[in-house]
Amino acid sequence: MLTREQLMYAQVRACEYLDRVGIVLAAEESNNIEVADFGLDELETTGLELVVYVNTERVCAKELVLFPHQTCPEHRHPSIGEVPGKEETFRCRWGTVYLYVEGEVTPYPAAQAPKGREHTYTVWHEVVLRPGEQHTIPPNTLLLFDK
Amino acid sequence: MLTREQLMYAQVRACEYLDRVGIVLAAEESNNIEVADFGLDELETTGLELVVYVNTERVCAKELVLFPHQTCPEHRHPSIGEVPGKEETFRCRWGTVYLYVEGEVTPYPAAQAPKGREHTYTVWHEVVLRPGEQHTIPPNTLLLFDK
Repeated sequence: MLTREQLMYAQVRACEYLDRVGIVLAAEESNNIEVADFGLDELETTGLELVVYVNTERVCAKELVLFPHQTCPEHRHPSIGEVPGKEETFRCRWGTVYLYVEGEVTPYPAAQAPKGREHTYTVWHEVVLRPGEQHTIPPNTLLLFDK
Repeated sequence: MLTREQLMYAQVRACEYLDRVGIVLAAEESNNIEVADFGLDELETTGLELVVYVNTERVCAKELVLFPHQTCPEHRHPSIGEVPGKEETFRCRWGTVYLYVEGEVTPYPAAQAPKGREHTYTVWHEVVLRPGEQHTIPPNTLLLFDK
């Protein structure tokens, strides 16, 4: 589990990145930036910082911050009963995002799976997003991303 | 109907506002900024500029640009058959947005209805949004906005 210090450090760092691209947050939002380490306690390599703007039953809008070489692990959003799985659009605002989805394997991907976790990374079709570029992912697609 | 010159001028102007807040658009997006004059041919006072990032059956994400004193007219998004009406969240990135929704009338609203159109503006509960502030509107709510 993240210590209070790790959480605050990641929040401040995320704020710096957001500030750099001109995204204005309310004070409460800055204080509530979510820091996900997925219970793995290796935030530098496996983690994600999130500002949640909206999260209703119908729609969710977030700013995601990935620090350099930080990876959000492979996952999918399946349908559950009658609730359809999540459709996601990623838009790059700054830096370069490497998104990996199901499909033809990219021979020399830019990103690597975090050390010791190679077996949990199985999708290697690379989509490169630069500022102003985006990619929409249908529900139930395996994905991971890295910056 | 907008002339080609009016359209291009509004697109360039919208790009300047977006650039000012650090929003990067792909070239194709800059060229395809939608300019809505709602058929009224008075774009300076009644109009809206839009960059549509995503527009699927499930979700829609847009950047909206309102020039100073430009108003998006009163409207609502009702349910049609089994398709639920649109839920909208407005987030202010720059400037000040005056949003008007159903509710108690604000005595001295900051915005005015465009001249000659006063009878079509009926909701006067004012919500003021400054950068980093947002407001979510349930389906079927009357709304208009002004900057």
